[in-house]
Amino acid sequence: MADDHKLILASRVEHTPVFDEEGSLIGHVRDLSIDRTSGQVVYAILSFGGFLGIGKRLHPLPWDILSYNEKQHGYVVGLGKADLASAPHYDADELEGFGGEQHARKHRDIFEYYGTFGPPPI
Amino acid sequence: MADDHKLILASRVEHTPVFDEEGSLIGHVRDLSIDRTSGQVVYAILSFGGFLGIGKRLHPLPWDILSYNEKQHGYVVGLGKADLASAPHYDADELEGFGGEQHARKHRDIFEYYGTFGPPPI
Repeated sequence: MADDHKLILASRVEHTPVFDEEGSLIGHVRDLSIDRTSGQVVYAILSFGGFLGIGKRLHPLPWDILSYNEKQHGYVVGLGKADLASAPHYDADELEGFGGEQHARKHRDIFEYYGTFGPPPI
Repeated sequence: MADDHKLILASRVEHTPVFDEEGSLIGHVRDLSIDRTSGQVVYAILSFGGFLGIGKRLHPLPWDILSYNEKQHGYVVGLGKADLASAPHYDADELEGFGGEQHARKHRDIFEYYGTFGPPPI
């Protein structure tokens, strides 16, 4: 509780830039996916793409793989563009409905994909 | 994990109406205050006021005191307008800086105020 700036507003997390492990800008946080009951942020939704011949896509990233970097004023993920290009992504309608019946399978897909890159889910 | 609609987008929580225990609309969720490290939503920021001679104010509500009501399509808090009128509130600049040095005291103020109304903080 004595840490400086321990809390951040969701409205500020949205629009925060996200950089890859080489320091290149790969996208921005578009939204957050929150567990209704516990209030735990499960995913940051990364708006990614517009390069490598990929259009803009929405990638749910497990919250734990984001690391805030003061110098870059943004989040760093330990992934390169190629890793993200192969990552699970969804369209806006699917993300609106996230957490529904099929969520268990998508949740496993996402955490298994990122498991090799970051901490395992709690 | 098998629950329907277990997850909600932050962009949808923002703008969700909030009703008091009598079913009257008291405001809307303006923003969420999130612990940077854990990703836990600590407060929902309620935009409250415009009646009882009170201008619009921003009230951090502990996440746990919000209860989603399907019929009303919004959150219900077990508080009346008078209780909220006396509750800790902050201006937008203060909320931007929430979680800084003085946060420990404000956090205690907020949770002590709402402690009598809802579950104790984790």
